[in-house]
Amino acid sequence: MRSVNIGICGLGTVGAGVFNVLGRNTNIINARANCEIAVTQVGARRDNPSCDTSGVAVVRDIFEVAKNPAVDVVVELIGGTTVALELVMTALRHDKHVVTANKALIAAHGAEIFAEAQSRNRIVAYEAAVAGGIPIIKALREGLSANRIHWLAGIINGTTNFILSEMDSKGRDFADVLVEAQEKGYAEADPTFDVEGIDAAHKLVIMASLAFGMPLSLDGVFTDGITKLEPQDVSYARELGYAIKHLGIARQTDEGVELRVHPTLVPESCLIAGVNDVSNAVMVNADAVGTTLFYGPGAGSEPTASSVIADIVDVARTLASNPDSWVPPLGCASSALQSQKIIDIQNIETSFYIRFSALDKPGVLSNITKIMGDAGISIEAIIQKEQPAGEEYVTIIILTNVTKEKFLDEAVEHIEQLETVRGNVNFIRVEHLDQ
Amino acid sequence: MRSVNIGICGLGTVGAGVFNVLGRNTNIINARANCEIAVTQVGARRDNPSCDTSGVAVVRDIFEVAKNPAVDVVVELIGGTTVALELVMTALRHDKHVVTANKALIAAHGAEIFAEAQSRNRIVAYEAAVAGGIPIIKALREGLSANRIHWLAGIINGTTNFILSEMDSKGRDFADVLVEAQEKGYAEADPTFDVEGIDAAHKLVIMASLAFGMPLSLDGVFTDGITKLEPQDVSYARELGYAIKHLGIARQTDEGVELRVHPTLVPESCLIAGVNDVSNAVMVNADAVGTTLFYGPGAGSEPTASSVIADIVDVARTLASNPDSWVPPLGCASSALQSQKIIDIQNIETSFYIRFSALDKPGVLSNITKIMGDAGISIEAIIQKEQPAGEEYVTIIILTNVTKEKFLDEAVEHIEQLETVRGNVNFIRVEHLDQ
Repeated sequence: MRSVNIGICGLGTVGAGVFNVLGRNTNIINARANCEIAVTQVGARRDNPSCDTSGVAVVRDIFEVAKNPAVDVVVELIGGTTVALELVMTALRHDKHVVTANKALIAAHGAEIFAEAQSRNRIVAYEAAVAGGIPIIKALREGLSANRIHWLAGIINGTTNFILSEMDSKGRDFADVLVEAQEKGYAEADPTFDVEGIDAAHKLVIMASLAFGMPLSLDGVFTDGITKLEPQDVSYARELGYAIKHLGIARQTDEGVELRVHPTLVPESCLIAGVNDVSNAVMVNADAVGTTLFYGPGAGSEPTASSVIADIVDVARTLASNPDSWVPPLGCASSALQSQKIIDIQNIETSFYIRFSALDKPGVLSNITKIMGDAGISIEAIIQKEQPAGEEYVTIIILTNVTKEKFLDEAVEHIEQLETVRGNVNFIRVEHLDQ
Repeated sequence: MRSVNIGICGLGTVGAGVFNVLGRNTNIINARANCEIAVTQVGARRDNPSCDTSGVAVVRDIFEVAKNPAVDVVVELIGGTTVALELVMTALRHDKHVVTANKALIAAHGAEIFAEAQSRNRIVAYEAAVAGGIPIIKALREGLSANRIHWLAGIINGTTNFILSEMDSKGRDFADVLVEAQEKGYAEADPTFDVEGIDAAHKLVIMASLAFGMPLSLDGVFTDGITKLEPQDVSYARELGYAIKHLGIARQTDEGVELRVHPTLVPESCLIAGVNDVSNAVMVNADAVGTTLFYGPGAGSEPTASSVIADIVDVARTLASNPDSWVPPLGCASSALQSQKIIDIQNIETSFYIRFSALDKPGVLSNITKIMGDAGISIEAIIQKEQPAGEEYVTIIILTNVTKEKFLDEAVEHIEQLETVRGNVNFIRVEHLDQ
């Protein structure tokens, strides 16, 4: 049996998972790869007590792995976009194939990496970069290849989904759950990357490139995090039959492509509304297949390893075959990719959930509905919550029909200027995900 | 650009979908296949008004297509297992690659077909045979290749899921919904194949082969249909927090493999409980990734065409490459497949929902719980429904903990012999799908 030699760079959570699963499921994996996959070398700054690397050459300098003539495939699991980029480019220049789990690297530097790989007839695979253990890259790139994709919407960050699930099921507030998420290792000490939607934006850009045949670019992606979400909004949304999820949404329209990450009300009847805790799920809507959904663990040692090894198996099975038979990194030849206009958030059409405090006296509601009407926004539902005793302000919730965000902004500005309204008008976008 | 010539056999619902989507999305599909996919010939007994075949050679004899020297890939969409088998074998013997959507053919004759294909270095692809537009074959065979799969459980028949969804949401009875399903084209005039679970068994066997590395065989699959399900069971299940779904379940145990299709109570909190109407979904539980779920339309013209064309793209892209680089039909070399013992339903362990009528008088319940105890079955919950006025019998519902089915059968037999119990004891298996 032919042998394919792997060099693993990085022995953190994911690296240890890859090393351990390769060791545990060797027979199955080799049978599926139709070759013997051998870990020839591991590059790691330090040992990881959760994996036994005795019997494998471990070096401290990961660039040794990238240059090792005995290594066929370099597996980049160090993260980040500086050393990781240098490592991947070095590996390619030494004629290695590359497997990576690095979403930031692919989103920011994919074009450069894929060009180098193409010029050297090498494969770069990155299934683990999006949605952990869910084989969504393969689904978009191969499983749905017959389709013109209309939109996709995903829970693609486990940290924010865990926080929202806790806020929802237990009425807790954001800051409180964040501390627990940090203690559990679901969130970093600096959680910005996750809770502000930057990590999700990286994954969204990768999926959008595959779905719409566009070059990778982070330009123009709208991101809004979950830090300002209040438990009352989660609970009002439930009363109205919605769950609030932090979604990455990419949509092809006649005017261009929408790329946005933000908290979103989705109907409870929608399958994705039931995706809780650190799980991920991606809905894909396309012309032939209709709506599909792919669900699974979005992070973690062995789930991510599952995707990394699936890539290793694909690479090992095909590396000796004609490069014309390989699936190109973005699903079609780079020359066939077409840039598209990214639509400004102000011009995106969606429905809205709006909450604010207003004086409980005659005429206030009619002022507000007039402002909405003047902005061309029709109202789906309006709810006035009962006020606590002694409180002269009441909470008002409005669900709008579909409108452009700039019209909503205009209405919000006018409402905030009313003397009868106190404080800010809060709004959250609503998606029905039904067409 | 290289050209790959397709011959489509069968121009029914799926054939028309394949023809139309290939025509509509030509540019996208060719870009993803890295070649020009041309429909060279169509074999169909009659024209289909929903597709315009002008400009394509249409012949009435499908075997002409299978033997046409100008055809590279034969797409079998005629269904059945007699002519279809002859067609596929003829195509292979004329050195064509084959794409089929035929679950019965693959489940019953896959071994013979794959052997012929291997001996001639030809590809047989069958993504559309299981779960319509959901790329579940690719997920099992490639996306999850790192994993030892523990179990899978799927809603893999749209007809039965439509019927159960209607019984559930509207309290209708089986016979009533069946008529509507037949009118809507969801069910055949003779619905046996769907409602008795035979179609699901075919799909289950294919998925089990991929998941557990076993040769294809229909032997030993337990099937129980939905014809005897009563609306009251669907509604009692809801009261207890469960949905009833017709699941195909395959599980690897130390004693062998479970292969079974039957109505199943699943907790409402489980994502698959929310899969309604003609949709399909497959849950897969595996050692590295944990639990994943794949959802989408399980049938229909263009959803099925989506999977057929994904196969055509894969075949077109790789047919000129080294056969060693192809994914083998069952995920690993046929020589690596290992037969396993199929566990008899009597020896399968699961929980049960039990319903029967008993006289509403002291001592009856304690008799029943004693019988359960003697059979070694512990009771999770027992509910006595309020009886209608003037009725001396009450409905009793029991939820058991996990037990072997033979112990349940023994208890049921004893309960049915009690003078205080009227009629049969009905039971439905319960799966928590949580590990």
